[in-house]
Amino acid sequence: MLRVSSCLVLAAAMALPLALAPPAARAQDDLLKMQENAANVVMPTIDYANTRYSALKQITAANVGKLQVAWTFSTGVLRGHEGAPLVIGNMMYVHTPFPNNVYALDLDHDGQIAWKYEPRQDPTVIPVMCCDTVNRGLAYGDGKILLHQSDTTLVALDAKTGKVVWSVKDGDPGKGETGTDAPMVVKDKVFIGISGGEFGVRGWLSAYNLSDGKLAWRAYSEGPDSDLLVDPQKTTSLGKPIGANSSLKTWEGDQWKIGGGDTWGWYSYDPKLNLIYYGSGNPSTWNPRQRPGDNKWSMTIWARDPDTGMAKWVYQMTPHDEWDYDGVNEMILADLDIGGRTVPTLVHFDRNGFGYTLNRETGELLVAAKYDPAVNWATKIDMDKSSPTYGRPEVVAQYSTDKNGPDNNTKGVCPAALGTKDEQPAAYSPDTHLFYVPTNHVCMDYEPFRVSYTAGQPYVGATLSMFPAPGGTDMGNFIAWDAAKGKIVWSDPEQFSVWSGALATAGGVVFYGTLEGYLKAVDAETGKELYKFKTPSGIIGNVITYEHAGKQYVAVLSGVGGWAGIGLAAGLTDPHAGLGAVGGYAALSNYTNLGGQLTVFAIPGS
Amino acid sequence: MLRVSSCLVLAAAMALPLALAPPAARAQDDLLKMQENAANVVMPTIDYANTRYSALKQITAANVGKLQVAWTFSTGVLRGHEGAPLVIGNMMYVHTPFPNNVYALDLDHDGQIAWKYEPRQDPTVIPVMCCDTVNRGLAYGDGKILLHQSDTTLVALDAKTGKVVWSVKDGDPGKGETGTDAPMVVKDKVFIGISGGEFGVRGWLSAYNLSDGKLAWRAYSEGPDSDLLVDPQKTTSLGKPIGANSSLKTWEGDQWKIGGGDTWGWYSYDPKLNLIYYGSGNPSTWNPRQRPGDNKWSMTIWARDPDTGMAKWVYQMTPHDEWDYDGVNEMILADLDIGGRTVPTLVHFDRNGFGYTLNRETGELLVAAKYDPAVNWATKIDMDKSSPTYGRPEVVAQYSTDKNGPDNNTKGVCPAALGTKDEQPAAYSPDTHLFYVPTNHVCMDYEPFRVSYTAGQPYVGATLSMFPAPGGTDMGNFIAWDAAKGKIVWSDPEQFSVWSGALATAGGVVFYGTLEGYLKAVDAETGKELYKFKTPSGIIGNVITYEHAGKQYVAVLSGVGGWAGIGLAAGLTDPHAGLGAVGGYAALSNYTNLGGQLTVFAIPGS
Repeated sequence: MLRVSSCLVLAAAMALPLALAPPAARAQDDLLKMQENAANVVMPTIDYANTRYSALKQITAANVGKLQVAWTFSTGVLRGHEGAPLVIGNMMYVHTPFPNNVYALDLDHDGQIAWKYEPRQDPTVIPVMCCDTVNRGLAYGDGKILLHQSDTTLVALDAKTGKVVWSVKDGDPGKGETGTDAPMVVKDKVFIGISGGEFGVRGWLSAYNLSDGKLAWRAYSEGPDSDLLVDPQKTTSLGKPIGANSSLKTWEGDQWKIGGGDTWGWYSYDPKLNLIYYGSGNPSTWNPRQRPGDNKWSMTIWARDPDTGMAKWVYQMTPHDEWDYDGVNEMILADLDIGGRTVPTLVHFDRNGFGYTLNRETGELLVAAKYDPAVNWATKIDMDKSSPTYGRPEVVAQYSTDKNGPDNNTKGVCPAALGTKDEQPAAYSPDTHLFYVPTNHVCMDYEPFRVSYTAGQPYVGATLSMFPAPGGTDMGNFIAWDAAKGKIVWSDPEQFSVWSGALATAGGVVFYGTLEGYLKAVDAETGKELYKFKTPSGIIGNVITYEHAGKQYVAVLSGVGGWAGIGLAAGLTDPHAGLGAVGGYAALSNYTNLGGQLTVFAIPGS
Repeated sequence: MLRVSSCLVLAAAMALPLALAPPAARAQDDLLKMQENAANVVMPTIDYANTRYSALKQITAANVGKLQVAWTFSTGVLRGHEGAPLVIGNMMYVHTPFPNNVYALDLDHDGQIAWKYEPRQDPTVIPVMCCDTVNRGLAYGDGKILLHQSDTTLVALDAKTGKVVWSVKDGDPGKGETGTDAPMVVKDKVFIGISGGEFGVRGWLSAYNLSDGKLAWRAYSEGPDSDLLVDPQKTTSLGKPIGANSSLKTWEGDQWKIGGGDTWGWYSYDPKLNLIYYGSGNPSTWNPRQRPGDNKWSMTIWARDPDTGMAKWVYQMTPHDEWDYDGVNEMILADLDIGGRTVPTLVHFDRNGFGYTLNRETGELLVAAKYDPAVNWATKIDMDKSSPTYGRPEVVAQYSTDKNGPDNNTKGVCPAALGTKDEQPAAYSPDTHLFYVPTNHVCMDYEPFRVSYTAGQPYVGATLSMFPAPGGTDMGNFIAWDAAKGKIVWSDPEQFSVWSGALATAGGVVFYGTLEGYLKAVDAETGKELYKFKTPSGIIGNVITYEHAGKQYVAVLSGVGGWAGIGLAAGLTDPHAGLGAVGGYAALSNYTNLGGQLTVFAIPGS
């Protein structure tokens, strides 16, 4: 069945790009232009480069201390609120976790609800969402608002009326396939990935026609080359062709069919290179003994042609993962000065605790360094181009959950499975040339166990417990990172993991939220805290800023949850529940409560 | 079964007051003193007189425009949030609708959760809560926090630790008996009423010992004199003894046993007169043809001795109710200048649209006047002491739902069943001598139908639709009322019913909330709007003010719901659902969303 469906998809993928070959589409032109207008937030990544930088600068390091709450909005839904609203002209588009309601708020009329979309989804999808009922937000293109529902339905809504223009089902929740990511619109297509790494879902990226919702192509993370949309000779990894059957030969038998490599993170786009970038997640199961080999192309950075889906280059960060270090975190595109020359880089803060800087045109690895000193599972990434292990991590045997065997509890691995950073996106400021990274400072004990695959049932195969990294009780840091050098510039400790997306601004202020619920503003140069405010619930959303009627606003969703907050969000008490997070973050319930609110800030009178 | 249980209760009621006869208790002394400290909010009515007036005056009419949000807290529960937190010293106690969680927030530590109480109640109570899953708040006494849960459990929590000191079940949700009211502590007792007028629940007031939760006495609204705790000779109505069997003779047969008269409003206390005051609600069923007679003592103001429960006086405002004009609204105790002499008055804004001023010592009726000009079901209250209908409303035949017969839809009755005001309490300022009243400007069509009683099943017997009063689209007003003269002094129109409790302050500012979610501040003298802020959700909570570390704060719960917001809260769409409210308030969903948040305001830097 898996094979049949993949073949059908393959046929579509190969045929459609040529058959439909669209002219330069209006949506792309619109978005390329619109993303430059800092008054708006037209895409979930703020810009195609995923910098999460805003050119707005009414709010500065000098005056951010005067910030106050301008208005608020309850989403009407509890549990984890990831992502952020879009703002286009006088309209703000707010999404919610399951059931994935969408509210269009009229900023000219005090946030009045212009329209709402409240889908009726089968709630049986909830138990197959591994880490809370999150949704990372909406995309906009060609007058449509795009939503990827939990049940994998991709729906296009008329941005003016909220009416459904088209909708299409991308996956099957009955097999554990769910939708959590924010779509990305590039040219005439909309891209979505799939969640389900804890259910053995083989990951893919789908490209749908923005005009009518027809599938344009689909590219899998694992399987035969035809499923991957790779060219064995032209697709490269670290400068070399990947060769034929690059994925199949790294799996035992048919295991790739339930091999994970899901694609639920963020998508970036370089219009000049005409490449989209994203990462694939953990290989399934979490028990590494059950899947010998490198398990390609899980844990991989992908660079693809958005028109055809064809991969230009790949880079697998964590071959044969033993710790659930998904590679899905965002790819930030920035032109950096590396050793005196300006390089078109891609910067990626991986769950595995290494910050990677690559040449985004070629996939060349430039820098790979730990962005939390606690990281201990590997000593380093081998940067010796002549080495047979070039580009691979040097794993510390003590922390190998495979080597320690299925009955052995591997103690004190850093970072924990949720990574030194999870999906919460970092920001980059072209003013300071620094990356602002929300991080986890959390370690784990990891005990793999044998597990059998049944479609739609958890396929995890490990019992975890999480705890603060040694030497203290803090579980997070908000750091500034020099990606050219691979160095931490400053680090602000936080009691809990920083599980919100960062925002850098031309005003010299960087914003982030905390799991206790604080919105914080810090100096972009020094990290000095300039402002904080306790919002109604823990923040796992991404901070945005926009301008309306000439005034700059800052906005963030509150609503504790996500993996770190799953204990609170789902009312779990067993410390091993929530894939090990419940015990680690138990103290969070002393600080905040379930919620679902948008808080909008401004400087009064300015 | 009803008879048996009432006899048992009667035995307890007669025996306990004598047997236990307590000395002047510490709780009373504490509370009498504590309510004078305006820094705190020690009872749900702010003071025993239910004035909802605060002597705090850092925030004034001149500076209230500078108000900003200081901090926020998500209650973690959606649906209607009535009532308000208590504030005692450095602790704030926040309650929620079902499941009736209680959170103690440490104001010295940024609202950190010092303890929480999260009862596990059987959710089958939800469908027998007529008008949303509301709870009107907590009481404090003798180091305990008192909570009346939906399932009628009265629980005493240690105010320092949240541990259960005692708990007692007051009623049976299986019969439609539910708890929604805020308890009131007077001396050594805690008082609670019962909800269930739409389920034929015969109302009572229970007095429990604050020390151990034992029932001290229980007084019914209907039935034999021994159940009522009345003295046929000494208990008076409008100056005359009520005589024997005053209730029984106003009912046909045993109908009083399922006769309503529930007691879910607010309780007041005059320590000098040693009287507590409260009102009883609608007679059951809503079909008046099924229950001939005056249906005493439904729709009645009660003055009782808190030690023994014995009634001193009663006054029935709406004999033989035909419109569901419950008499439960709060009794505000104020000494007013009436015709040149200072009178100890009780002022009550009834659902029936009349504002009543009585001598609270004697029950003498001083003033009764419409507080919304739209009121049309009665021309006036007969104030002629020599008249045989003295004190009774002069009902307009056109609007009699009884006279129009069971198959006839009585059109255009004003106010609608939810009254010119419902439970949301008014405030009184001794500075301006004005009452500030949140009102509904809503009318209805009322179609009675025959209904049979089954325990635990709805026993409503009428189909309603509600709509704005003629002549406009506004559904509410916030008014200032002269209770000595029975005149509106000023009136601020509102698009929707004002369903939040008011707060008057020594700063010359009056606060209230709106169903769209605005907290508003108006000038106490003129009603001029001085400030507004859009909170996350519609406000049906009561505004409070407190002082902490020398600074004045204003706080209010958001969370749309209650009767007016039941369509939104419960996701109802049939316009006749929600006892007629759903159609009338349908537009509300264009303005706000489900929520559950506390928003706390202060003037920055002051």
